[in-house]
Amino acid sequence: MKLNCDLGESYGAWSMPVESAIMAEIDQANIACGFHAGDPLVMKQAIFLAKTHGVAIGAHPAYPDLQGFGRRSMTIGADELIAMIQYQVSALAGMAELSGTTVSYVKPHGALYNDMMKSLTIRRAVMQSVAEINAQISREPLTLMVQATARNDVIKDEAKEWALPLYFEAFSDRRYTDEGLLQSRTIEGAVLSEDEALAQAERLIESGTVITASGSTLKVEADSLCVHGDTKGAVSIAQRIRKFL
Amino acid sequence: MKLNCDLGESYGAWSMPVESAIMAEIDQANIACGFHAGDPLVMKQAIFLAKTHGVAIGAHPAYPDLQGFGRRSMTIGADELIAMIQYQVSALAGMAELSGTTVSYVKPHGALYNDMMKSLTIRRAVMQSVAEINAQISREPLTLMVQATARNDVIKDEAKEWALPLYFEAFSDRRYTDEGLLQSRTIEGAVLSEDEALAQAERLIESGTVITASGSTLKVEADSLCVHGDTKGAVSIAQRIRKFL
Amino acid sequence: MKLNCDLGESYGAWSMPVESAIMAEIDQANIACGFHAGDPLVMKQAIFLAKTHGVAIGAHPAYPDLQGFGRRSMTIGADELIAMIQYQVSALAGMAELSGTTVSYVKPHGALYNDMMKSLTIRRAVMQSVAEINAQISREPLTLMVQATARNDVIKDEAKEWALPLYFEAFSDRRYTDEGLLQSRTIEGAVLSEDEALAQAERLIESGTVITASGSTLKVEADSLCVHGDTKGAVSIAQRIRKFL
Amino acid sequence: MKLNCDLGESYGAWSMPVESAIMAEIDQANIACGFHAGDPLVMKQAIFLAKTHGVAIGAHPAYPDLQGFGRRSMTIGADELIAMIQYQVSALAGMAELSGTTVSYVKPHGALYNDMMKSLTIRRAVMQSVAEINAQISREPLTLMVQATARNDVIKDEAKEWALPLYFEAFSDRRYTDEGLLQSRTIEGAVLSEDEALAQAERLIESGTVITASGSTLKVEADSLCVHGDTKGAVSIAQRIRKFL
Repeated sequence: MKLNCDLGESYGAWSMPVESAIMAEIDQANIACGFHAGDPLVMKQAIFLAKTHGVAIGAHPAYPDLQGFGRRSMTIGADELIAMIQYQVSALAGMAELSGTTVSYVKPHGALYNDMMKSLTIRRAVMQSVAEINAQISREPLTLMVQATARNDVIKDEAKEWALPLYFEAFSDRRYTDEGLLQSRTIEGAVLSEDEALAQAERLIESGTVITASGSTLKVEADSLCVHGDTKGAVSIAQRIRKFL
Repeated sequence: MKLNCDLGESYGAWSMPVESAIMAEIDQANIACGFHAGDPLVMKQAIFLAKTHGVAIGAHPAYPDLQGFGRRSMTIGADELIAMIQYQVSALAGMAELSGTTVSYVKPHGALYNDMMKSLTIRRAVMQSVAEINAQISREPLTLMVQATARNDVIKDEAKEWALPLYFEAFSDRRYTDEGLLQSRTIEGAVLSEDEALAQAERLIESGTVITASGSTLKVEADSLCVHGDTKGAVSIAQRIRKFL
Repeated sequence: MKLNCDLGESYGAWSMPVESAIMAEIDQANIACGFHAGDPLVMKQAIFLAKTHGVAIGAHPAYPDLQGFGRRSMTIGADELIAMIQYQVSALAGMAELSGTTVSYVKPHGALYNDMMKSLTIRRAVMQSVAEINAQISREPLTLMVQATARNDVIKDEAKEWALPLYFEAFSDRRYTDEGLLQSRTIEGAVLSEDEALAQAERLIESGTVITASGSTLKVEADSLCVHGDTKGAVSIAQRIRKFL
Repeated sequence: MKLNCDLGESYGAWSMPVESAIMAEIDQANIACGFHAGDPLVMKQAIFLAKTHGVAIGAHPAYPDLQGFGRRSMTIGADELIAMIQYQVSALAGMAELSGTTVSYVKPHGALYNDMMKSLTIRRAVMQSVAEINAQISREPLTLMVQATARNDVIKDEAKEWALPLYFEAFSDRRYTDEGLLQSRTIEGAVLSEDEALAQAERLIESGTVITASGSTLKVEADSLCVHGDTKGAVSIAQRIRKFL
């Protein structure tokens, strides 16, 4: 089980806290590409930090929405969405390359991630975006990171058509619904406390399950655990999960 | 002598006219990278059009200023400017690659281009941006397109330090000052009429000179002539220059 | 019956065509407020033009989406949406005031307009935005412009709670569904030809009805007809409707 | 002597620290208007907070540059700059009005403030922006806040032509040059420590002077002291100055 974290989410004069401290605890850094956060200088610094810590770099493309931090769903046609994702991945991949490292996977951000899990149309657009890059560019194919649910097999079948490798990720610090999706942040208790997060992480690692909001046990087989850099105690949670691993 | 033109300068619902008609007449397309114009879909379409017409693709990075179309000078530190240029070139280069073609040169846009010609600090930052890409990425080195002036040798010497190949470009449709720079668009007569532009193009091609605003003859040795896609009669001018060539 | 048109939809170097020519033919100008189009200088010029022609000025607030021209639906919480609308209306109202004129109504733009017609939550947020302005500011209350449908009475009842005056508008150049909404622009034939638009305008004026996409006759009682400034022949359509009136 | 502070400088998911704590210590809040910081919701909250604490509200317009936080000088023509300032002031003034309060002054932000102090052309554009609002709008005229220097009389004479009331402000926490301008933040020591800031504040209040970077004593007569909300110890400095007052 890997640990991943959203990073490079500062913008100009505005900083997201924790950022650098967590780099020592994770395996995979999802780096913002400028559409929801991350100006070019912030991206460069995040790439440098990831390289220094030997952390794998993922592109973290989003809807074009700085003000909403990419958390607002937007109605965008498939061809435009594909171009947007490829623009963002290309920008980060090029900047990683000239820093002497590479982007190895893609994890959509925020509302784009949620929409991808809910809508087959969006998921196809995301898969096509990454698959077209893999088809033309002569380096290791990019892996798409999606959310682990009770029905990983459905997404595996879809990805096979695009010859697209997948990472399934689970969330240590977010409450699950019975459908295996994340509760909206607007719901009380959707973001877990540090102790709850650690317990959920241990359960995911040991038995590949979570306890949902209704109290049910749900199968959630994952390759990577997401820890959030912008919640209080993020570094502490990551350290405790790392220790457990 | 090549012909180059700024292209891909539409944005969302807003179109720049002429765009596609001129593609048949030029050798080099300077494609906007999203900072002054050119959303990802517009970029993709411009790349496709250039590839179809066998036109070389140049990245056309700019200051981050959609509202001012990159024509406003901005005070930006060298490290941030370098990151901005590399972000834009990377985005376009990646999108060109996945369309089965490549970016072969970089031409800064608008105020960034003018500032590069006026300020050694800015010019160094631009050169470093491109040279760092060339140093790390295993493809043909990118050429930097700069303005041809009476003192091309100065810039040649600077570029040598970065092992940076250069294109010198001259302007067929803009009036020159005695210093070999372009008159500001705010001055009456700074943008030439079609007949004046053709005459200036012929003179540049045959004798490597221009007649400046004061009536003097100035040496301007160039590899490429810029025709503007957003002036009236742009296609017609390009066709007449092409015929002359 | 009034004629209204979306105006001031240029942005920086990008122009929307027709713009000024149509001002002579209309009664109400819906002026963009900077979120989907219309930078401050464009707004000022549109206000000046409207004042010169004696055309009433409406604020035309939108989702914050220049790249999508406000045509993309976005998920935004009611409190943030209210603040966004009030920001835009305030900006235009202030600029109108210092040009010696006033804003007299509000017409939401694009996806915000469509969402307002479909969602009670969005419609409430829009109504509250305008009603709060009317409650605090000592001038003529702003009128909200909404789409005329077969069920104008429902919206009249809702507006009564906010003491909000209404304009109902119909579209001369867009095809109607049987539900009295506009067909999506992505459907072939959704934008009417000039002759079709004139016929629809005449029918709306004479009998308060439209022929829908399925061929049915639908009651659509309207105070104002929208003519689009960005369709071909817009000025010609407006002139012909004006003549008919 | 009043105390003023830049506020409402959060944006979407990004927060500027201290913000609310300092409101209890100041007399005047310079509220960002959306161009360098401050989305509509942030503005509304800052207005509410200022009103609650009985703090006067100033509009804090800036160059259109979120990524650079308005700290980058930009070349913008006078007519466009005037429209930009009037847009921002109008937006904030309208939002203040519908919250039952008013904007009473204007303080340009960051690079616009510095450019205003250095360039007569920019200063004229700023003065005209505010004077035009005062001429047309029937409420208390807005006061322009400018930097106190050794030559306040020059600016007083200029403002007289626009019938523009002025506040002169001095900086407690920034080092002065011998010309009475602020040292660039890029110079070591340009931002004073808490104790230095308190000493400078006391000197400004008691004798209307500062000790410049070169050690000279300079006359700086001010109506208001700026305390920065984004420096460490801002609240503590403000409390100590308040106590001294």
